[in-house]
Amino acid sequence: MYLDNPALFTDYYEVSMVQGYIGSGIADKTATFDYFFRSLPFDSGYLIFAGLSDLIQTLESFIFTKDDLQFLESIGLSTTCTEWLKKFKFQGSVYSVQEGEPVFPGEPVLRVEGGLAELQLIETLLLNILNFQSLIATKASRLRSAAGDKKVIDFGLRRAQGLGGIHASKAAILGGVDATSNLYSAHRFGLASGGTMAHSWVQSFTNELTAFRSYAEIWPDDTVLLVDTYDTLESGVPNAITVAKEMRDRGHELQGIRIDSGDLAWFSRQARTMLDQAGFSGVKIAASNQIDEDVICALNSQDAPIDLFGVGTRLVTADGAPALDGVYKLSSIGGEPTLKISDSPEKCTLPGNKEIIRLSDENGMFQADGIILTHEANNIPEQFILNDSGHIASGRFHHEHLLNPVMIGGKVVDELPNLHSSASYVQDRLKKLPDEFRRLREPDHYRLGYSEELLDLQKNLIREKKLRYETE
Amino acid sequence: MYLDNPALFTDYYEVSMVQGYIGSGIADKTATFDYFFRSLPFDSGYLIFAGLSDLIQTLESFIFTKDDLQFLESIGLSTTCTEWLKKFKFQGSVYSVQEGEPVFPGEPVLRVEGGLAELQLIETLLLNILNFQSLIATKASRLRSAAGDKKVIDFGLRRAQGLGGIHASKAAILGGVDATSNLYSAHRFGLASGGTMAHSWVQSFTNELTAFRSYAEIWPDDTVLLVDTYDTLESGVPNAITVAKEMRDRGHELQGIRIDSGDLAWFSRQARTMLDQAGFSGVKIAASNQIDEDVICALNSQDAPIDLFGVGTRLVTADGAPALDGVYKLSSIGGEPTLKISDSPEKCTLPGNKEIIRLSDENGMFQADGIILTHEANNIPEQFILNDSGHIASGRFHHEHLLNPVMIGGKVVDELPNLHSSASYVQDRLKKLPDEFRRLREPDHYRLGYSEELLDLQKNLIREKKLRYETE
Repeated sequence: MYLDNPALFTDYYEVSMVQGYIGSGIADKTATFDYFFRSLPFDSGYLIFAGLSDLIQTLESFIFTKDDLQFLESIGLSTTCTEWLKKFKFQGSVYSVQEGEPVFPGEPVLRVEGGLAELQLIETLLLNILNFQSLIATKASRLRSAAGDKKVIDFGLRRAQGLGGIHASKAAILGGVDATSNLYSAHRFGLASGGTMAHSWVQSFTNELTAFRSYAEIWPDDTVLLVDTYDTLESGVPNAITVAKEMRDRGHELQGIRIDSGDLAWFSRQARTMLDQAGFSGVKIAASNQIDEDVICALNSQDAPIDLFGVGTRLVTADGAPALDGVYKLSSIGGEPTLKISDSPEKCTLPGNKEIIRLSDENGMFQADGIILTHEANNIPEQFILNDSGHIASGRFHHEHLLNPVMIGGKVVDELPNLHSSASYVQDRLKKLPDEFRRLREPDHYRLGYSEELLDLQKNLIREKKLRYETE
Repeated sequence: MYLDNPALFTDYYEVSMVQGYIGSGIADKTATFDYFFRSLPFDSGYLIFAGLSDLIQTLESFIFTKDDLQFLESIGLSTTCTEWLKKFKFQGSVYSVQEGEPVFPGEPVLRVEGGLAELQLIETLLLNILNFQSLIATKASRLRSAAGDKKVIDFGLRRAQGLGGIHASKAAILGGVDATSNLYSAHRFGLASGGTMAHSWVQSFTNELTAFRSYAEIWPDDTVLLVDTYDTLESGVPNAITVAKEMRDRGHELQGIRIDSGDLAWFSRQARTMLDQAGFSGVKIAASNQIDEDVICALNSQDAPIDLFGVGTRLVTADGAPALDGVYKLSSIGGEPTLKISDSPEKCTLPGNKEIIRLSDENGMFQADGIILTHEANNIPEQFILNDSGHIASGRFHHEHLLNPVMIGGKVVDELPNLHSSASYVQDRLKKLPDEFRRLREPDHYRLGYSEELLDLQKNLIREKKLRYETE
């Protein structure tokens, strides 16, 4: 589960509103909330949706403990409210795109139906889980894309945002990173783990050569030597070669060296030449130090002979966009569609229960997504209206319904895919996203259309809401 | 404690090195590690050091469980190593600046002494705790400084980096934020909590006026109405005034309104005028939506009549600098000072066991810090050599030793201050930091000097290390 005791992992106003809903007699009114995000992070052309399995597991066992309830009373919640919370069990339904799906801004990628108060109670938890894991999975998918066939390892725990590091490593693997140095997450989520040595190892021996020899003796089949403690080319690489020869004499091979400072392209090239000339072309070169997808692209464009990238801070803290702006908005109440208008036009929401249709061409390549009302799902509209006032004819494409029931009435429908199948799903789906949307910088905008009925509903509701307050 | 089961909250290489230290017979060699950071985040002139109490509590009860050890064996650790870990208890000593101390780049703000392997084992945990909490406490202190006497509330949990939100709220309060919406952290750490209402509240009733009336009935003494769901000035504020009048007739006062979109300066000014003209000058205006210290300064410079700032994403994710580059470096081994040279000159470290001396003028204002070797502490050098080759005479200043023993031989020396005294300490100490270092943008650089003996030691060790590998 995400957190042993998740009920208080929420904002004050969620519970004060629940008390209000109970007091107003509308706590059990049927409602729908949509989860969607407004803008893509990192100049990315897509977002990798992540966090679903953590969310569902947490909702399944979500309860308020006695201690939680006592705390809520101590901050002013009524006993009527805490009695209600005491009996609380999540009984709503969740419809969602799959874990690992590439999705786009404005799409209702997850829809929750249930009682108003129960849906309100889970808002903060849901947003916290989905926003962060989607952000990191997206960053990781970009690193994967930049690195191509080279390995990428997460080294970020020491600079992660506190306990955020736990799910950062998980989402990194989902998005395409090969392994993590984070043993807590490796153990908890069954992730591949790995690592090398620190400068302190080298400093702890009388000299670098002794330090290298000692490590190679203890880890004969898994030695990666850190070569930049004193001087990479004058000391580190020559000593690594000495040890590699000694290892070979004993029937072992040095696995690699790691460079953690200086110009990584230049040092890796010099080190490669020295290793090759000494007969160690099989020794891999790992590089770390402020690496991200742009650095990987730049190093690759100079043919830097680096085999493995250790990526830390910039991966686990989502450098460049440390938060995803995902929101959770009420779209129907008591069976009636509703919306929020707002004084910031981009914050106006889409009313009603909705579904996403993905349109693909004859080669299975994604061409556009269309948002429709759920009752249109069996009879998909012939055209979707695009934001820029054009439209797209749906008939000539293959249609895929992206939202599937994951939880119905508080019960999980089917076992969710495990992390490794979801990680494969990410790569499979990204292959179907045309290149122009996968480019790491300045990607093209993926097309998103709406059914005419949905846009009409939105227009009419805006008119009606404006009318309603004007006549009060 | 930071985490129920912290032993695996570490990097793979920490335990593989521990196995190596054991195998090489140097696991218990005495060692010293320094924690320091290299650059200030957010264009800040200082860093607020935070996380000490979490670190110390975690070290006190740090053990490897049977489950942890089984996992480590499953990934290849030897039984010799896991037997050693099974008996492990942290018995080192920690010397540190106080929780909440303003500190500067390059200072060894925390020093750990003990056995080599035990100090290696805690590296990742220590860095994760101190880096993130210091980062957020610093951001919060900047918000406090920008807001002056106005209130600042943390609303960030939904966009926090996963479980990182737990300690983000704690560090935010330490740094100077007044309260948090995060109930989990409020309960766990005894923080003041608060919040208002969401747009979904307003949408859940047939109209905005009914929604406002319902809330006011249920929370008569604590009502803050969100006025931007449909139209702030045409609907939200007029309806809030209607409800404020009805409340007053029943002997209550509306506490406030909240604006969450649009131009916050313009809307707050219009709303203030409308409220004042209706006789509600006591109703406060709260504002939220992408607020940070720069936005607060800009709004204040336009005299926006905002009484309370709700700060979310940009606080809890440390927008602008999502990680602090704090490191933990070996500075002595077997009683001998050591250092790392590196191919990036700024990564060369300071050898030996060190102490920080803070120099203050006759008014108690901080003027400079000096780093000395611990044996110089009773006879402070007459001058500190500055980075830019000048020097500062220490004689004319008041001297303060910043590092104090917090843990000796694994035992806590004195009970650590609670969060609220540490939060007061932050504000007291910041008052002693001259204005030029507290300016939010382009602050002056605080002066940091070194004893001549320390610099000589560094110079000699670099020469010796270079000599050592050249002759191998």
